[in-house]
Amino acid sequence: MTKIKKITLSRPGNSAKFTIIDTDAPCVTNPDDVLIAVHYSGLNFADVMMRLNLYPETPKAPFTPGYEVSGKVLALGSAVEGLEVGDEVMGGCYFGGYSSQVKLSSWQVKKIPENLTLEQGAGFMVSYLSAAFGLFELARVREDDHVVIDCGSGALGAILIKLLRHNGVAKITALTRSQEKLEAIENFGARALTHEQWQMADERADLFINSRGGRSIKSDMKKLSPLGRIVCIGASNMVHQNKVSLFKIVREFIGMELLGRPSVMGLMNSNNGVFGLNVLKLFDEPERIKRLLAEPFFYPVAPKIDSVFPFDQVNQAHEKLGMGRSSGKVLLSWK
Amino acid sequence: MTKIKKITLSRPGNSAKFTIIDTDAPCVTNPDDVLIAVHYSGLNFADVMMRLNLYPETPKAPFTPGYEVSGKVLALGSAVEGLEVGDEVMGGCYFGGYSSQVKLSSWQVKKIPENLTLEQGAGFMVSYLSAAFGLFELARVREDDHVVIDCGSGALGAILIKLLRHNGVAKITALTRSQEKLEAIENFGARALTHEQWQMADERADLFINSRGGRSIKSDMKKLSPLGRIVCIGASNMVHQNKVSLFKIVREFIGMELLGRPSVMGLMNSNNGVFGLNVLKLFDEPERIKRLLAEPFFYPVAPKIDSVFPFDQVNQAHEKLGMGRSSGKVLLSWK
Repeated sequence: MTKIKKITLSRPGNSAKFTIIDTDAPCVTNPDDVLIAVHYSGLNFADVMMRLNLYPETPKAPFTPGYEVSGKVLALGSAVEGLEVGDEVMGGCYFGGYSSQVKLSSWQVKKIPENLTLEQGAGFMVSYLSAAFGLFELARVREDDHVVIDCGSGALGAILIKLLRHNGVAKITALTRSQEKLEAIENFGARALTHEQWQMADERADLFINSRGGRSIKSDMKKLSPLGRIVCIGASNMVHQNKVSLFKIVREFIGMELLGRPSVMGLMNSNNGVFGLNVLKLFDEPERIKRLLAEPFFYPVAPKIDSVFPFDQVNQAHEKLGMGRSSGKVLLSWK
Repeated sequence: MTKIKKITLSRPGNSAKFTIIDTDAPCVTNPDDVLIAVHYSGLNFADVMMRLNLYPETPKAPFTPGYEVSGKVLALGSAVEGLEVGDEVMGGCYFGGYSSQVKLSSWQVKKIPENLTLEQGAGFMVSYLSAAFGLFELARVREDDHVVIDCGSGALGAILIKLLRHNGVAKITALTRSQEKLEAIENFGARALTHEQWQMADERADLFINSRGGRSIKSDMKKLSPLGRIVCIGASNMVHQNKVSLFKIVREFIGMELLGRPSVMGLMNSNNGVFGLNVLKLFDEPERIKRLLAEPFFYPVAPKIDSVFPFDQVNQAHEKLGMGRSSGKVLLSWK
């Protein structure tokens, strides 16, 4: 039987390291299956959280992380339409993407659009679906909303800004921690402010996208306009320099889940709303995902690629992402 | 100086009674003022909460409650357009509506639409604005949403259902406590279920309108679909037979504000959102209110009137509303 390579994690935690194993190749068993020779696997911050054992849904170890891949179709089930063996495709998956071959259902797979490279395809799905679900399905953003994004300079920030602009939303403010990243944000097409500048500004958000989690949610909610809404899309504040900081975890967890839980009476008084988004949990909603990946909605924003590591340097790749040293997507290459 | 009559509350609480006082008539001082001879004042459940001292925003006693009136224009400021002395109008106000004359700003006032009587005009504003803000400005309901309403048989339920249908939302389920009210709900244009039937049904809501508050919020959230949202619009569960039940308050308050506060991590796991609405707090948002009261959005749903009490029977009127014996709006008459 053909062997493939998989990256696995045996014990999550502060000193966790990935190992590479050889295993049997998957094969087409259902009429809807698509077998992909993976060229690139995309890393996500959720993978870092999972490695550090901060993610409640981490599967039982040993497991293979990874939510997105790009590559070429190796084999197809009998019912798959619109794809052929050899096609360059990108795919989203609920775990398992750190692998030289993956088997997905056809609704999880999309041909690489003309404006994307094969590399970019591996960094598209999670950011795009997070942005699209958050903005259009949860918040139901409108053209005249003032949208404020707390992760302006990252891969998600770029896609949020471009997707908003494509859909006619003009008033976008994107925030960053560092002065040096302001220009990059402006190039994405948004007004750029530091977090401090936003806090000082006498302005409010109709929609706030919060990716930091923890105590930041409560302070961001204070800057919502009447009838405004916040979409909480991550908890990057829980990680500090690629490590679990127990102090930080406790502080942010207390801030988010004990002291910081939104009061319904408070929401009534301010006429606001709070959404939570975990796009990975929507990977069992084929119909909703299909709609976002099909015309007329689909809009393939090319993600910014920060770096590509050979698959056997997965630990270095994770360190770069976990330390906050990347600006754009970090990929693994299987070529 | 001309004298008018006002209903005031000196000390909110379980045994609170209203008294009627004579006071100086208001007069036009600003160019945007509209002086109204009140024919009918509308009662709202928030007034009951306020009388029982359950409403956090209750003004300092003695004060005059009342959020909506209808009547005839007595005098106009120089800048008011589209209204003439003698016009039949309805108005929304932040307190003070239990009065034989009120002075409002022109954006708070609207000519009685052709399909509404003067009586119905006094029961229109609060329910209509609550429904419109909740459905279209907070939840941003879509035509294919399954909307579930927990107060199907009341005045708010009727207007929610009719406003949804007018805007093309077809899948509406409205709930009631009692079997006898199912038919009334079906006549409003929704599918009718008892709360028990809904809990048993293997169905979920894309949008849930919760008017009961307290512990019900948490259980209603369990029946939201992925990407679904709940709008919390009241706390009628805190009142029991027109009285503050300390047991009930403690139980519902703990259920709502301590144990029942939504967890952001929980919202992420279910991809849901929670909104709070207090329409009275939006009475200082003229632009937003104007939009809902103007074409093309405006849709004057005739409210169901339960009963009209002479103003000097305000205590009896409150008892009927507080005991849950009304089905539709309760009004005071000043004629």
